[in-house]
Amino acid sequence: MSQFIVIEGLEGAGKSTVQRHVVDWLDARGIAVMTTREPGGTPLAERMRALVKEVHDEPLTMEAELLLMYAARVQLVKTRIQPALAMGTWVVGDRHDLSSLAYQGGGRGIDLGLIRQIKAAVLGDFGPDLTLYLDIDPAVGLQRARARGPLDRIEREQLGFFERTRACYLELVRGDPRCELLDAGRSEAEVKAAVLDCLERRLCIPG
Amino acid sequence: MSQFIVIEGLEGAGKSTVQRHVVDWLDARGIAVMTTREPGGTPLAERMRALVKEVHDEPLTMEAELLLMYAARVQLVKTRIQPALAMGTWVVGDRHDLSSLAYQGGGRGIDLGLIRQIKAAVLGDFGPDLTLYLDIDPAVGLQRARARGPLDRIEREQLGFFERTRACYLELVRGDPRCELLDAGRSEAEVKAAVLDCLERRLCIPG
Repeated sequence: MSQFIVIEGLEGAGKSTVQRHVVDWLDARGIAVMTTREPGGTPLAERMRALVKEVHDEPLTMEAELLLMYAARVQLVKTRIQPALAMGTWVVGDRHDLSSLAYQGGGRGIDLGLIRQIKAAVLGDFGPDLTLYLDIDPAVGLQRARARGPLDRIEREQLGFFERTRACYLELVRGDPRCELLDAGRSEAEVKAAVLDCLERRLCIPG
Repeated sequence: MSQFIVIEGLEGAGKSTVQRHVVDWLDARGIAVMTTREPGGTPLAERMRALVKEVHDEPLTMEAELLLMYAARVQLVKTRIQPALAMGTWVVGDRHDLSSLAYQGGGRGIDLGLIRQIKAAVLGDFGPDLTLYLDIDPAVGLQRARARGPLDRIEREQLGFFERTRACYLELVRGDPRCELLDAGRSEAEVKAAVLDCLERRLCIPG
């Protein structure tokens, strides 16, 4: 049965690269795959992403930020992810729910229970079958992100924000058997080997 | 103490006109007033309004529509309405929470409990001190709305959608002592007289 696999982590953790490794691994096994990125992934959801990512004169309240994240997510899940899964296509996503819990919960300080309430109200118990969390020191990750180009509104937060976000990620990942914690501070080759090992162990699909 | 007064009703019920009557009535009593419209009322919230109101190729899911409404609402409440009320300015709003319950709940069929959960998660128990609901037959209201210009995405719904929305409005208004039910099918002069009478009875401010 098709599965929903999500790559999570701070900016600069290497999510896009790992997403590619997962797609290649599934491709090699003849499995149909679709990739997504959040927030975004549909034309309307990308407009919601822009509202969240652009630097504005008007401060975006943290509650509006959270609701925009879920508006984009529910739009993507209902119009793209669920239809793909229903047709037997696997989905490999760059970010999902855990990002909202870590960034808006851990980083901004919104109560995790409130975030889960909003999630449950619009998405029920839908969620990833497997999450690969790429753990990175925020100082290292932000340096990598800065090398890529100008930082967006969220990437411009203080280091303390990302430290709280990482601490929340770690706590949630350690308590969830459907999450795998990967040290992303290693070399690309080592991270790739750890990802492939995890896929072999977790998915049990003959290569 | 400053109050938050909201005008509610279907398209074509005469909300803008009644909003003006309320503002004039408060002006005449030397009370500082700010008006708002929802969804919208700040540059960012207006961009969320556009996502909800524009006609798109991609169908906007009802859950994303609901979350966009609340994203715009919380942005407006936290950056405009609450600061104004705190400074002693009264606020007269065109639409608020009740619209989400009536349209997304009654019209679209989203469970009212879920809508109230989302509301409570981001706005706590904040709400209008007084709501004037302008009740109109949807067929009459839509005819008036059509005369004003092209219909937006929501206004293009079938008559049955607006009949369910109206039924939900009526049920909620009848059960809430902070709501006043006004028959908006009468002449403009009659509606105005009923609005002024309601303000005299409800607000007890010497003219």
